[in-house]
Amino acid sequence: MIKSLEIIKEIAIASPSKILLLVIDGLGGLPNPETGKTELETARTPNLDKLAAGSICGLTDPISPGITPGSAPGHLALFGYDPVSCNIGRGVLEAVGIDFELLSGDVATRGNFCTVDEKGLITDRRAGRISNEKCAELCQLLDGQMIDKVSVLVRPVREHRLVAVFRGGGLVPEVSDSDPQQTGVAPKSVNALSPKADRLAGVANKFVAQAGETLAAHRPANMVLLRGFSGHPQFPTMSEIYQLKSAAIASYPMYRGLAKLIGMEILKTGATIEDEVKTLKQHYAGYDFFFLHIKGTDSAGEDGDFARKVKVLEQVDSILPELLGLKPDVVVVAGDHSTPALLKAHSWHPIPVLLYSRYCRPDRVTEFSESACISGGLGRFPATQIMPLAMANALKLTKFGA
Amino acid sequence: MIKSLEIIKEIAIASPSKILLLVIDGLGGLPNPETGKTELETARTPNLDKLAAGSICGLTDPISPGITPGSAPGHLALFGYDPVSCNIGRGVLEAVGIDFELLSGDVATRGNFCTVDEKGLITDRRAGRISNEKCAELCQLLDGQMIDKVSVLVRPVREHRLVAVFRGGGLVPEVSDSDPQQTGVAPKSVNALSPKADRLAGVANKFVAQAGETLAAHRPANMVLLRGFSGHPQFPTMSEIYQLKSAAIASYPMYRGLAKLIGMEILKTGATIEDEVKTLKQHYAGYDFFFLHIKGTDSAGEDGDFARKVKVLEQVDSILPELLGLKPDVVVVAGDHSTPALLKAHSWHPIPVLLYSRYCRPDRVTEFSESACISGGLGRFPATQIMPLAMANALKLTKFGA
Repeated sequence: MIKSLEIIKEIAIASPSKILLLVIDGLGGLPNPETGKTELETARTPNLDKLAAGSICGLTDPISPGITPGSAPGHLALFGYDPVSCNIGRGVLEAVGIDFELLSGDVATRGNFCTVDEKGLITDRRAGRISNEKCAELCQLLDGQMIDKVSVLVRPVREHRLVAVFRGGGLVPEVSDSDPQQTGVAPKSVNALSPKADRLAGVANKFVAQAGETLAAHRPANMVLLRGFSGHPQFPTMSEIYQLKSAAIASYPMYRGLAKLIGMEILKTGATIEDEVKTLKQHYAGYDFFFLHIKGTDSAGEDGDFARKVKVLEQVDSILPELLGLKPDVVVVAGDHSTPALLKAHSWHPIPVLLYSRYCRPDRVTEFSESACISGGLGRFPATQIMPLAMANALKLTKFGA
Repeated sequence: MIKSLEIIKEIAIASPSKILLLVIDGLGGLPNPETGKTELETARTPNLDKLAAGSICGLTDPISPGITPGSAPGHLALFGYDPVSCNIGRGVLEAVGIDFELLSGDVATRGNFCTVDEKGLITDRRAGRISNEKCAELCQLLDGQMIDKVSVLVRPVREHRLVAVFRGGGLVPEVSDSDPQQTGVAPKSVNALSPKADRLAGVANKFVAQAGETLAAHRPANMVLLRGFSGHPQFPTMSEIYQLKSAAIASYPMYRGLAKLIGMEILKTGATIEDEVKTLKQHYAGYDFFFLHIKGTDSAGEDGDFARKVKVLEQVDSILPELLGLKPDVVVVAGDHSTPALLKAHSWHPIPVLLYSRYCRPDRVTEFSESACISGGLGRFPATQIMPLAMANALKLTKFGA
């Protein structure tokens, strides 16, 4: 296990106190050049500011300064897992993202339906973004094949995206992608990156070849591209480490899947922030740790839509009183990474965080923003330390040593 | 050896400059809910504030954010030792805490006198908390036995608590406790946790059996329970690492014992802060590093006595001019952990620290307090870095690399 988690595992105790971890995806931003204010500084967030005034604040680095995290490492860090040694493969993420029940030993890969011309060269990597219905129909055609005693399970994700899971003894996921990530060339063959992976490479190439035949008549979706082969990770669960009964509330499948991989229970919820809050209230008695995920901020940032990100932040602010009304013992408001609208992408900038509890020792920060949190009592620190701090503030950790 | 200490060992040089490390035990606190001010913020500390104004300040984490340290890891971090890999066993701590002179190879264990019924089942793990006098009298009955060429030394601690030290060649402390930590059951037998520990397990079980016979007539203290078998740690000494001639001044035995384990000389002193200052003055010429320990702050915090902790802090402030009058080249005022009166216990909150020297590059902090130190030039940092900083400011470290 990861060393820091070993200490936590030793000193964690179960108790009735409750921790709410509100993750605002892509929370951090960059100043609008016209106003000099970030999205969070522009948004009217009286409730977050008031909470910040009674909290201890800081800025987190999910991995380390300068490193831009993907969604998975960004979240793993928030849950206390070292995001570098606990990296999760793309295929696995995509599989859990559609609520696919992965077994230990499974190898999962992401896939695209794509269009190839008569010479077999890729003309559209996304097959014109076929409909969800079409995707599901075509996946059914490919699903359930048995190739060299390996069964291949194929599931639709959305539009042109699919997941393929290879299930059979002793598969090693160290193989290259078939997706060349460009048009005008043929799909690449899947190559074993270590001798142990020969078997999977062989099966994958046969699968791709058969898919080409099966899909020939289904132009524009007449081929598949595979990438991100990966195996089910073997991490300790949240309850093993923290003695927590933890629940995840997330509208987006990826975040539910990630939470499931580390042993959280996934609570069924709807598509909106209000749905998520309702789910939290319904299940509040049953758990002592809640991961509540807000996706809209990240999506707006990725779209470069500064104003929409501001609006989503204001919406999050508006639900805060309801969350606080439940009287959780510890409230953490954090982000998995920054997604500045200016960059239209995840970024490396540290993320504002606030931690509220009766015992948090508040600092002088009275506003929840990037610039105010610089002066916070938590300083600038690795995001992996959020969970130990939340646990301590919930009085769920005994002391280390005599 | 610990990696960071290896570098220090390489570049440390002996010099006449003097370092004073003033450790205010349990220094950090939490705001009084009525005033919003911590103990340190409430105390009138003009001398500490003036010193802070000329110093560089910060906040330290003894282990890492969220982790509450015991006294031993808290102090080891202050002395530059990694508090996790240098953890010290319970039995050893208890032994050094009563000024017992442990030899290399000794195995020490904590013990309780307890009460067992006629069937041998434990009815009171603490034997009704017998008096110190009774404890001393019974320890004498058990002390000095020779079992299989191992001599067993038994010393009273307080009330029902004792220390047993097993002295004889090649004892390995990897054995389980005999204390089941509950009543209604019989004491457990001591089991070897590795084959090498067979000898110690055998001796310990014979010792317990004989103790039962010896104590039969001394109900309620008619049996002993042992726990926390541990050996004398093999850390490099302060002089090996830092080239320092170091002295410890501490009214409480535990802190003297801890200092002795890492090779400090222990200066005989009295029970009060004034006694400790007097001892420092008497021996000031003879050493170049002084660890001066103030216990009252921690005790008051543990008792939940906010006002008393404030008073002890003011008392510490009042002796500061005398300490500075000795003109040490480097003065560090630090704590081993926080002990907020609000929590009545050690806590995870970072601890204010100031470092004064002619070369410290002062920051803008003009008040020695939790909230002011957030803005200090040292930032928030691991307590293990205090000693390298003190050594550097005393010009006792040469440069690393060409």
